[in-house]
Amino acid sequence: MPIKKQKYNPEDDLGFGSQPVIKSQPLIRQDGSVNVKRVGLPVFRPYDNYHKLITMKWGKFWLLILACYLAINVIFASIYLAIGVQNLNGAEGTNTFEHFWDAFFFSAQTISTVGYGHISPKGMATNSVAALESMMGLLAFALATGLLYGRFSRPSAKITYSSNLLVAPYMEDHHGLMFRLANLRRNTLIDLDIEVIFSFNEDVDGKIMRRFYQLELERKNVSILTLNWTVVHPLNDKSPLKDMTPEDLQKSQATFAVLLKAFDDTFSQTVHSRTSYQHSDLVWGAKFKPTFDRDEDGRIVLDLSKIGDFSSIELPPIQKN
Amino acid sequence: MPIKKQKYNPEDDLGFGSQPVIKSQPLIRQDGSVNVKRVGLPVFRPYDNYHKLITMKWGKFWLLILACYLAINVIFASIYLAIGVQNLNGAEGTNTFEHFWDAFFFSAQTISTVGYGHISPKGMATNSVAALESMMGLLAFALATGLLYGRFSRPSAKITYSSNLLVAPYMEDHHGLMFRLANLRRNTLIDLDIEVIFSFNEDVDGKIMRRFYQLELERKNVSILTLNWTVVHPLNDKSPLKDMTPEDLQKSQATFAVLLKAFDDTFSQTVHSRTSYQHSDLVWGAKFKPTFDRDEDGRIVLDLSKIGDFSSIELPPIQKN
Amino acid sequence: MPIKKQKYNPEDDLGFGSQPVIKSQPLIRQDGSVNVKRVGLPVFRPYDNYHKLITMKWGKFWLLILACYLAINVIFASIYLAIGVQNLNGAEGTNTFEHFWDAFFFSAQTISTVGYGHISPKGMATNSVAALESMMGLLAFALATGLLYGRFSRPSAKITYSSNLLVAPYMEDHHGLMFRLANLRRNTLIDLDIEVIFSFNEDVDGKIMRRFYQLELERKNVSILTLNWTVVHPLNDKSPLKDMTPEDLQKSQATFAVLLKAFDDTFSQTVHSRTSYQHSDLVWGAKFKPTFDRDEDGRIVLDLSKIGDFSSIELPPIQKN
Amino acid sequence: MPIKKQKYNPEDDLGFGSQPVIKSQPLIRQDGSVNVKRVGLPVFRPYDNYHKLITMKWGKFWLLILACYLAINVIFASIYLAIGVQNLNGAEGTNTFEHFWDAFFFSAQTISTVGYGHISPKGMATNSVAALESMMGLLAFALATGLLYGRFSRPSAKITYSSNLLVAPYMEDHHGLMFRLANLRRNTLIDLDIEVIFSFNEDVDGKIMRRFYQLELERKNVSILTLNWTVVHPLNDKSPLKDMTPEDLQKSQATFAVLLKAFDDTFSQTVHSRTSYQHSDLVWGAKFKPTFDRDEDGRIVLDLSKIGDFSSIELPPIQKN
Repeated sequence: MPIKKQKYNPEDDLGFGSQPVIKSQPLIRQDGSVNVKRVGLPVFRPYDNYHKLITMKWGKFWLLILACYLAINVIFASIYLAIGVQNLNGAEGTNTFEHFWDAFFFSAQTISTVGYGHISPKGMATNSVAALESMMGLLAFALATGLLYGRFSRPSAKITYSSNLLVAPYMEDHHGLMFRLANLRRNTLIDLDIEVIFSFNEDVDGKIMRRFYQLELERKNVSILTLNWTVVHPLNDKSPLKDMTPEDLQKSQATFAVLLKAFDDTFSQTVHSRTSYQHSDLVWGAKFKPTFDRDEDGRIVLDLSKIGDFSSIELPPIQKN
Repeated sequence: MPIKKQKYNPEDDLGFGSQPVIKSQPLIRQDGSVNVKRVGLPVFRPYDNYHKLITMKWGKFWLLILACYLAINVIFASIYLAIGVQNLNGAEGTNTFEHFWDAFFFSAQTISTVGYGHISPKGMATNSVAALESMMGLLAFALATGLLYGRFSRPSAKITYSSNLLVAPYMEDHHGLMFRLANLRRNTLIDLDIEVIFSFNEDVDGKIMRRFYQLELERKNVSILTLNWTVVHPLNDKSPLKDMTPEDLQKSQATFAVLLKAFDDTFSQTVHSRTSYQHSDLVWGAKFKPTFDRDEDGRIVLDLSKIGDFSSIELPPIQKN
Repeated sequence: MPIKKQKYNPEDDLGFGSQPVIKSQPLIRQDGSVNVKRVGLPVFRPYDNYHKLITMKWGKFWLLILACYLAINVIFASIYLAIGVQNLNGAEGTNTFEHFWDAFFFSAQTISTVGYGHISPKGMATNSVAALESMMGLLAFALATGLLYGRFSRPSAKITYSSNLLVAPYMEDHHGLMFRLANLRRNTLIDLDIEVIFSFNEDVDGKIMRRFYQLELERKNVSILTLNWTVVHPLNDKSPLKDMTPEDLQKSQATFAVLLKAFDDTFSQTVHSRTSYQHSDLVWGAKFKPTFDRDEDGRIVLDLSKIGDFSSIELPPIQKN
Repeated sequence: MPIKKQKYNPEDDLGFGSQPVIKSQPLIRQDGSVNVKRVGLPVFRPYDNYHKLITMKWGKFWLLILACYLAINVIFASIYLAIGVQNLNGAEGTNTFEHFWDAFFFSAQTISTVGYGHISPKGMATNSVAALESMMGLLAFALATGLLYGRFSRPSAKITYSSNLLVAPYMEDHHGLMFRLANLRRNTLIDLDIEVIFSFNEDVDGKIMRRFYQLELERKNVSILTLNWTVVHPLNDKSPLKDMTPEDLQKSQATFAVLLKAFDDTFSQTVHSRTSYQHSDLVWGAKFKPTFDRDEDGRIVLDLSKIGDFSSIELPPIQKN
C-alpha cells in the first residue's frame, strides 16, 4: 500500500494515537460518541455534575428529581419530628407513624410553598426550620428551572445518515466513495462543514500501527441544507484508498469517521454531528436512489426514510490518466 | 445562453438539486422559509418539540399553556374524586357536580402553589397526590419559564427588503442589479455578510435542469448597518445575467435567493435573514429614492417606509469593452 | 487634500452614506450609540419589546414591573368586586372602599401565590377567576425571571478609552495618532480586534460629500488584554491624514469612529464596544504617561484612572523618505 | 542571545508591557488567572456585580443568599412591628421579643410565598407591605434562578496539564520542548487551538526589558481531543530558545504562558483554558510515558492521572544543518 507520507502525524489531528484498532472497537462509534474508557479521574468532580444532569436520559432525570423531592421531605420530616410534632398546629396524628406522615406532608407543603395552613408551624425551632425549608424549596426549583432550560436549549443536530458507504460511478470515468445525509429536524441548517477521516491498521516492520487520513471531498461545505447532501470522496490518484480492495479494508480494520459542523438558524448555535462507517458498511458498485419528488402542486417532497436507499450498478472501469 | 461552466455543481451548494422550478413554487419563499414538504419522518420526534414550542405563534402558545393547565386540573380533580371528596377538608359541595368543582379548584390551588387552605387534604392518599401535584406544578412552571425565555431570547433579525429588484445605471457606463435593505429593529447589526443566488431552468438537450449561480456583488459585507444598504450586482461580462432579457427570465422561472448573516450587538448572537425575488419583481430602468434626510438639528432621519421607493429612469446603453 | 482613491466606496462599509456631518451631530456618539432618528416604522412592533425591556435602565425596569403588578391587581380586584365580594370568604370590609381593598389584597395574595387563606374564594365564578389569576401570576413571574436573566447575562464590554487622541512621536522619526484603552471589568478579554474609521467633509466641485477611510493601524488585534492597549495609526505616506492640519480637521468636521470586538472569557460571548473622537479631542504633541507600576511584592499595579493621562512633548520633524 | 527581531512588539500582543518580571510574580499564574492588581476604578461598579456573583465560590454564594434572606426578613419584620403587631391576625406573641419573631416568620412565609395563613395581614398598611413583599420575594427568587443558571451554564474547560515541560528527543535528530494536556470533563472538545508564549527578561544596555515570543509549534490545532495532546515546540534554528541553557532561563525569569481555545460540543460554546510554566518546571532530557492502554475487550483506557508521568532519557546531540 504505497500511501503518500504526510508532514504531520494525522493521528495527532484526532488525538487518537497510533494504537491499532481491534474488531468492534472503533474509536468513534456509529452514534458519534467516543469509545474511550477514562480512569484516573479525581473521585469528586463537581464540574461534571451539570454535564451529567444535562445529558442524562429524560426518564432518569425525572426519577432523580422525584427521588430528591422524597429524600428532602423525609429529612425535614425527621427534623420536625425531632423538634416535636406538638409544634405542628393542626397535625392530628395519634401515633409515631401518623406523626411522621403529618410532618412529611407539612414538609412537602412547605418546600413546594403551597402552604395550605391547616398544619402550621409553632415555636422558634419549627418556624425557623420551616422558613429555611421554604427558601430551600424555592432555590431547588430555581435549580430545576435552570436544568430544564439547559436541557431543552442544548444545541444538537439530528442528522440521518445513509447506512452504507457506496462505491459509485463518479464524473465521466471515475469512481467515488459516497454517503448521504439529511436533517431530521424542522429547523434550517446553514453553513455546513464536513470532514471524513479514514483510518486503518498498517503493518510497519511487524508492528501494527494505526494510520489516519483526512479524505479529500468533492465539496467540504454547503451554504444551506434544504434537501439531502451526497458527500463524495473521488477515488482518484490522490486517494489513500485508490489501490485497496474490500479484503484489504477488512484485514486492516478500516473505519471512516464523519465529523459534521453546522449552524442552527433557529437557535443561533453551532451544532455538531458525528458518525462512523466500518469496512463492512461499504457497498462496491451501487448508486443512491433519489429521495425527493414533486407533488401535484409542483412542490418538492423529500422522503427522509429513503436516505439510505440504493440500487446496484456495475462499476465502469477507471480511465487511468 | 452561453454561461461559464463552474467546477463544482452550485446546486450542491444550496442542496436544492437540479429539479426545474415550477411557477409559484420557488425553493425559498419571500419570507425566507424553505418550500419543501418533508415526509418519511419517524412518528415520534421528541427532538422537534422544543423547536415547535419555541417557534409557534404567541396566540397558539398561550392557548396551549391554558389548555394544559385545564387538562391537568381535570385529571387531578378526577383523582381526588376517585379517592373520595370527604378527604378534602372544607369542601362544601353536596352533589357530584359540586364535588368535582371543589376538587378541580383544590387542584388549581395546589398546582399553582397558592394553597389558600380553606380546602385542605386529609389522609395519606389525598395528601400524597397533593404533594406530587404541587411538585409537578413547580416543574411545569419551571418549564414554562424556560420556554418563555427561550422564545424571547431567540435570535432573529427583522430586515426590511425593497419589494423590487431594480436594473439601474451603475458606475459611469454600466448597469447593475440592485435591491435595498434596512434593519427594522432598534438593535445595531454589525459584520453583515450577504449572498445572492440566481437560479433558472435550463433546457439541456430537451431535459429541463435547474441551474444555480452565486452572483458577484459590488461588496459582500459591511461593518455596521446604520442606515440602509443597497446591494449591487454589476451586470458586467462575468454576470450569468448579462445577455438575458425579461422574457428569458420569465420563461426560465428565474429566482433570486438572498441569504443575509449579521451579528446582533445587543444579544451577542449571529442572526440570519433570507428572502427571495421572482422574475416578476424585476424593474428594468429604475433608481432607488433616498431614504434619509436631515432634521432641523442636522441629525439624520431614516424613513424605513421608503426602503422600496424608486423612480423610473432611462437605462444608458452599456459601453462594451 | 490628495487622498488615494479606493476601489469601493468606504461609506458603504459603514452604511453611513455620503451626507456631510454637521457640527455636534457625528454619526457615532462618544458612548458608541448610533445617532440616527428612525421613522416610518410600523406602529405595532412586538419584535422590539424584548429588546426594550432588556436595554432599559434598571430604575425604569423596576418601576415598570411595579406598575404592572399594581395594574393587574386593580383589574382583578374590579373583577372580584363585579362578581360580588360576598364570594370572598373572610373579607370583612363593610363599604365599597373596604370591599375594593379586600378584593385588591386577595388578588395580590393570589397572583403572588402566597394565598394566606384568611380570605378565600367561594363559588364557581370567583374560584375560576382566582385559578386563572394564580396561573397568570406564575407565568408573569416566569417572564420576569427570563427578563432578569436576559438583562444580567447580556453581553457587554466596559471599556475605558483615553479622552484624547494624541499625535505623538512614533518609531524613530515618525508621528503616530494614538489613543489608549483598558478593560474596566474584572473579566478577561481575549482576541481583541479594533477598527478606526476616519471621516470628514470634502468639497467636491462645490458639493460637500462625507468621506470615510479605515485607518491603518500598527496592530489590529491583541490576544489578551491584561493591562492597557495603546492603539497607533502611523502618520506615514499612506495615511489620509498625513497632510492635514488641525485647522483642516476642524473645518471638515473630522471624526474618528472606533469599533472594538473582543471575546469575554467568563461568559463565552463576543462583546463589542464603540466610541468616537471629534477633531477637538486631538492633542498635537503629547505622550501618554504609564498606567502601571509595581508594588512592593513586584506585582504589577494597573491604575485605570490614569488611562487618559498624557504629558506635552515637542514633536520631532518627520524624516521624509 | 541573538534573537530575531520581530516587526511588531510581541509584548503588545499580550498587553503585558515590557516591565521585567520579578521572581514568583509571573503575569499569568499557573491556574490561568492574570496576576495584575487593578486600582483607580470607580467605587460603584454595578457592571461587575453579575460577574462577581457568577464567579464566586459556591460556599460563599450560598452564604450570601442565606444572609440576604435573613437581612430582608429582619427589615420587613421591623416594618411589620412598626406598623403594629396587632395587624398580624393569629400572632400569639406576648412581648416585644415574641412579637419580633412573629413578624419575622410572617415575613419569611410571605417572601417565600408559602403563606400558611395562620398569621395573616390586617388593615391597609400591613396588607400593602405584605403584597409588596410577596412580589419582591418572587423577583428575588427570579434573580436567584437566573444566577444559578448563569453559574451552571458558564462555559469552562477543565484541562489537566502535565506539571512539567520536557526537553525531549524530537524527530530523528532534534530536540523538542513538550508538554501534555487532556480533558478532565466528560464532554467532547473539538477544534482546539493552542498558543505558547515564551517571555524572559533581557538586559538592553543596562535596562532590563521583558521580551515575548510566540513559540512555533509542531501543530497549533487538533480537530477533536479524544485522548491526550502532546504539544511540541521544535528547538530548531528558528526557536528563540535554541541557545539558552537552564541557567540562562533561570537568570532571565523565563516563563511560558499557554493559551488554549476549544469548542465544547455539549453546550455549543467556545471555552478557554490558560496555564503557565516557570523555568523551574523544565526537565532537560525526559520523555512522557503513555497514558493509555487497552482493556481485555480491546477498548482504549485513558488514565488521566498519568498525564504528567515521564521517564528520564539521555538527549541525543543535535544534528546541525
